[in-house]
Amino acid sequence: MTGGAYATPILELIDQLGRLPGIGPKSAQRIAFWLLKASGEDVEQLAAAITEAKRTVRFCRRCCNLATAELCDICSDPRRDDSLLCVVEDPRDVVAFERTGEFSGRYHVLHGAINPMEGVGPDQLRMAELLRRFGDEPITEVIVGTNPNLEGEATAMYVASVLAPLGVSVTRLASGLPVGGDLEYADELTLGRALAGRRDILRD
Amino acid sequence: MTGGAYATPILELIDQLGRLPGIGPKSAQRIAFWLLKASGEDVEQLAAAITEAKRTVRFCRRCCNLATAELCDICSDPRRDDSLLCVVEDPRDVVAFERTGEFSGRYHVLHGAINPMEGVGPDQLRMAELLRRFGDEPITEVIVGTNPNLEGEATAMYVASVLAPLGVSVTRLASGLPVGGDLEYADELTLGRALAGRRDILRD
Repeated sequence: MTGGAYATPILELIDQLGRLPGIGPKSAQRIAFWLLKASGEDVEQLAAAITEAKRTVRFCRRCCNLATAELCDICSDPRRDDSLLCVVEDPRDVVAFERTGEFSGRYHVLHGAINPMEGVGPDQLRMAELLRRFGDEPITEVIVGTNPNLEGEATAMYVASVLAPLGVSVTRLASGLPVGGDLEYADELTLGRALAGRRDILRD
Repeated sequence: MTGGAYATPILELIDQLGRLPGIGPKSAQRIAFWLLKASGEDVEQLAAAITEAKRTVRFCRRCCNLATAELCDICSDPRRDDSLLCVVEDPRDVVAFERTGEFSGRYHVLHGAINPMEGVGPDQLRMAELLRRFGDEPITEVIVGTNPNLEGEATAMYVASVLAPLGVSVTRLASGLPVGGDLEYADELTLGRALAGRRDILRD
């Protein structure tokens, strides 16, 4: 702790915390000091939550979503529509769709998107698990709910091309202006998509 | 995991992570998913770093800075100037001063600042430890290096009033424009302080 540096265990802690997503050096330092000042009980609760989640949470055998049993709650729910499948990048996206209350089908979580810059190709996605489902389930429409960015679009195109021979309908989420947003602040790409995807007010 | 919610162990993990400083619900969620996806080894390294830091890091018996022995490296360094004491709020501030390479004295860490809104009074600060040092050490000047905000100023005034009877010189850090900053963007309080604290170019 001479010359303006921290002792080794503190540096190691800051270093480890800095590896968490979205945590820069300053945040890592703030969290490290918080942990050092916190009561042993508080820190144990955090450690226990991590351990417990790592121990009990696994991936659903069917849709690869997070689950605490062999099948996730959505896959084991008999009331869901077996013919409709929404393919998403991440378990968080499942929660986002569920919050809309507008989707009654099932999901498939790819756990990523195609990103050549980061070395993520189709092999790193849960594509084999996706294809396997078409033998077991009466799926007629696949909604590709990947993100509206470069990686999400590439993934959507890939999923569509792979599923094309199966004769199922493959759709993509609409792009356009966010509801409640301000046209003035929309980027030109979004505005362009909104224009191209314009709908007849009276008919729709 | 029905109706757009996560399973209990995931919610508990997100909840615990959300208690860390500067981590909002979205960040907590992102970190939780990172931890769930990370290898067991990565998570163990993080847990080990927390445990090791909690086990080995304590407060210096003399200055209350973080230490891995009974005295911190600065207190046990015989080359430091015993007559000069810099009082700071936080161990991070010690590191900040050390980085300047301009201070050769010793430190005292208060572990906080007076903040009536948050219920932090003088009793929560390491004031008793500070006063005790004047019996043992030949301190002649105390530099109050608390933050240039409301809480830091209140703490500085309090420290100065407590030390007044001891007959030591108590100084405060200069307030003014940050070096490399832009006058145009300085707030009026800072600019006012810079004006009030103006120095003679030729003399200083």
